Amino acid sequence: MNYAKLKFKRNDARSLYGQLVEALESAIEREDLTAGTRLPSERALAAQLKLSRTTVVNAYRELEARGLLRSHVGRGTFVCARPEPADAPFAWRGKVSAFAQLNADPALRNLHLDTMNSRLISFAAGIPAIECFPLADYRRLIEQVLRESSDAVLGLGPTEGQAPLRKAIAARAGTRPERVLILSGSQQGLDLIARCLIDAGDTVVLDRPGYVGAIQTFRAAGAKLVGWDTVRGDLDELEDLFLRYRPKLLYTNPTFQNPTGKVFSLRERRDLLRLAVRYRIPVVEDDPYRETYLDAAPPPPTLYELDEHNIVIHHSTFSKVLAPGLRLGWLAASEYVVDQLALIKQRENLFTEGLSQLVVAEFMRSGLFDEHLAKLRREHARRRDRMSASLAEHLPAKFLTHARPKGGLYFWCRLGHGLKGRQLLQQATAAGVVFANGEIFYADEAGAHELRLCFASQTPDRIEEGIKRLAASLKSGHERDAPREESLMPMV
Amino acid sequence: MNYAKLKFKRNDARSLYGQLVEALESAIEREDLTAGTRLPSERALAAQLKLSRTTVVNAYRELEARGLLRSHVGRGTFVCARPEPADAPFAWRGKVSAFAQLNADPALRNLHLDTMNSRLISFAAGIPAIECFPLADYRRLIEQVLRESSDAVLGLGPTEGQAPLRKAIAARAGTRPERVLILSGSQQGLDLIARCLIDAGDTVVLDRPGYVGAIQTFRAAGAKLVGWDTVRGDLDELEDLFLRYRPKLLYTNPTFQNPTGKVFSLRERRDLLRLAVRYRIPVVEDDPYRETYLDAAPPPPTLYELDEHNIVIHHSTFSKVLAPGLRLGWLAASEYVVDQLALIKQRENLFTEGLSQLVVAEFMRSGLFDEHLAKLRREHARRRDRMSASLAEHLPAKFLTHARPKGGLYFWCRLGHGLKGRQLLQQATAAGVVFANGEIFYADEAGAHELRLCFASQTPDRIEEGIKRLAASLKSGHERDAPREESLMPMV
Repeated sequence: MNYAKLKFKRNDARSLYGQLVEALESAIEREDLTAGTRLPSERALAAQLKLSRTTVVNAYRELEARGLLRSHVGRGTFVCARPEPADAPFAWRGKVSAFAQLNADPALRNLHLDTMNSRLISFAAGIPAIECFPLADYRRLIEQVLRESSDAVLGLGPTEGQAPLRKAIAARAGTRPERVLILSGSQQGLDLIARCLIDAGDTVVLDRPGYVGAIQTFRAAGAKLVGWDTVRGDLDELEDLFLRYRPKLLYTNPTFQNPTGKVFSLRERRDLLRLAVRYRIPVVEDDPYRETYLDAAPPPPTLYELDEHNIVIHHSTFSKVLAPGLRLGWLAASEYVVDQLALIKQRENLFTEGLSQLVVAEFMRSGLFDEHLAKLRREHARRRDRMSASLAEHLPAKFLTHARPKGGLYFWCRLGHGLKGRQLLQQATAAGVVFANGEIFYADEAGAHELRLCFASQTPDRIEEGIKRLAASLKSGHERDAPREESLMPMV
Repeated sequence: MNYAKLKFKRNDARSLYGQLVEALESAIEREDLTAGTRLPSERALAAQLKLSRTTVVNAYRELEARGLLRSHVGRGTFVCARPEPADAPFAWRGKVSAFAQLNADPALRNLHLDTMNSRLISFAAGIPAIECFPLADYRRLIEQVLRESSDAVLGLGPTEGQAPLRKAIAARAGTRPERVLILSGSQQGLDLIARCLIDAGDTVVLDRPGYVGAIQTFRAAGAKLVGWDTVRGDLDELEDLFLRYRPKLLYTNPTFQNPTGKVFSLRERRDLLRLAVRYRIPVVEDDPYRETYLDAAPPPPTLYELDEHNIVIHHSTFSKVLAPGLRLGWLAASEYVVDQLALIKQRENLFTEGLSQLVVAEFMRSGLFDEHLAKLRREHARRRDRMSASLAEHLPAKFLTHARPKGGLYFWCRLGHGLKGRQLLQQATAAGVVFANGEIFYADEAGAHELRLCFASQTPDRIEEGIKRLAASLKSGHERDAPREESLMPMV
């Protein structure tokens, strides 16, 4: 476009700046200036048109404010759109922040949507046996709490959590109530930790494979994610990662690890802690499955209990042992960390709803929680055994291999024949069964041939039916898409 | 320190790198190198010591990983601490992120802590008359929901909210359920909006004075805050701010504004919207007080209802009309915005606890909510009148002036005699009454002589008693700290 053609009337009622805005706007309208065109610098245009530089600066700013121009520092000012008609709906897309753009991954939500779809048998999300939920006790305790403590339920509550629940959790976790922070679900804990400790560009070392919610949270915080193979559990490898990346924190799930089921031995725990202390790397111990041991004695002590340096943030939830709908999680850490996290929590949702906190506190205090856990373990063991038997019956090892978990909620499986979990998931969904495909547990591109089955959330009959459906879609997929021989080999 | 004195054994079992680490560590230990000392560049030290540059780089890295050195891009590498003994507690302070450092303001939490302190008569936090809460109905509906929908209560819930509540809110707000997002308290909405739309350095224009939670949230997101005097409500001024700052959004509370009580007229609403559309500035309409009108007919329609361009995010809560303990808020916006916010909400706490959602939905559907609102308005009017009368009786205008609010929960007051709200608050707290001092409603340094009294949360007798205590501390403060005549003048 030839800017020299623009004419200005110095004795017009309209300001020069207004005339320039109008002239540029109609040039964009007529597409004399098309999207992407770089405008002259303010100084150059001012010189060419014999206007003051301020006039041009103000005109560019107004056009920017109206979304027609966009300036990029060091690159100049560009035409970015034609003016929209006055009644066009607002273009929200251009308004989204860098953080929100990192948040566009709906993997977790989709997992949940599938699980809420009653047409499907879901082995996808990690949910305990809801049939064991002590509904009658729960209703009775709600009545009791509303009768005795309605002020605490209806009024403002402390951001750190209701005192009786902090006390009950502290007693169980071997710490003091001031070191416990109640969370509106354990996902909130991950988010708070990320907001408290991670600046964009920081590195986080985490289990590989590991919990999808942690991967998403730390990624959304702009962290660089570096996986550590938890099953191999090689501490030299971890030390190399510490040295090479100087990470801001280590995130790990050392007890019935999600998705692999791995349990760190006491010795591995001590070695890991020693390393973390040596390199001053905070450890986030995600520990939702501690109470879900199925066979033998309880697992070794938590990293938090073994820690003598306040370097561990212990993090857990009632979602895997009571019900995810309660939205109750908690963490234990040094008082300084609890205080910092509480300040951020206040900004997220002020405080956690009080009724369920007080009910669960009473549930723990009265011993009902321990009774419930014993019952839940028996039912989970039954379901695990049924899934194990169903898998053995319907899915020979050439199709799918797995280890029998000793706790947690999952079978972590590897597909044979080079089959891919994501393809299988499509076929399986059509056949009425869903699971979690392996990719979502990796921050990199791995996991194509793995998958996770939650054994705890379905009744034994539904488990049998679901595994049958899975086997049928797996076999039909195998027949239809049989891969060539060479690509089979690495999958054995 | 004289680095040339460092000696290295080339045929030692220890690596050169290990020897350098040890030498520097003991120099720091002995305080030959003190905290803040700048080390030579890696290249310079390598040349001086005749080591390879890689050796020096690796040594610096290890010492950094162990927290003894800190490097700043472009400035060099500095000694940051002496090595701590192996059993010293972990130094969390140095690990906190830039975001967390912006979150260190405990104003809102302190306001709440004061309100939870039963020794104090609190006019501080904005809470409705909890005595009006329909506890019997609420208990009955909890029973009903647990009987009829325990799966929805215990299982995973949709991030966007329970369908019956989205439907009930949409009907009331004049929109469609897909455009409603349920929030775990309205504070969550502000946080989600900030995370979705604000990058650090963006400008937000907001009411001045305005809601403390919004100020804190946008500040914590790294936004530059620019106040607009909502009471004057000058649209030319707002246009100047749009032009000058090109803000990312406008946050306003146009109906019974917190803290001033201002209600925008229909015409002001239309003008404001026209301006926002012209400059393409998204509008966050915070609207928690709409149903709290006390005298005349309901207030004019919401900006959201008047908006024809999808430019408004409407945002509200049940905390100001039912009870803050429920932790239930909601927003209405275009489907694209709801979707973006839901993805971030999923990262914050997956979904909102379901029981209270379903109970409130049934409460709205059955008509009980409207009955409750009518009752609440009558009680609030009674409390407002009582506070108005108490203020008139105990605090003559030379001490404190105020306007009688027509809705909302607050008296916005100005102190006479140059008295400062923050000083008064100290005296008042000692006398057993608290309020919100004016400064917290300003993003800049103003508000020293203003204060906000919530009239809704205390019974009429407690209001009378609280105002008496306030008057006593105000008068005693005035006698003790009477300022000189010239500083009195501007406060009249």
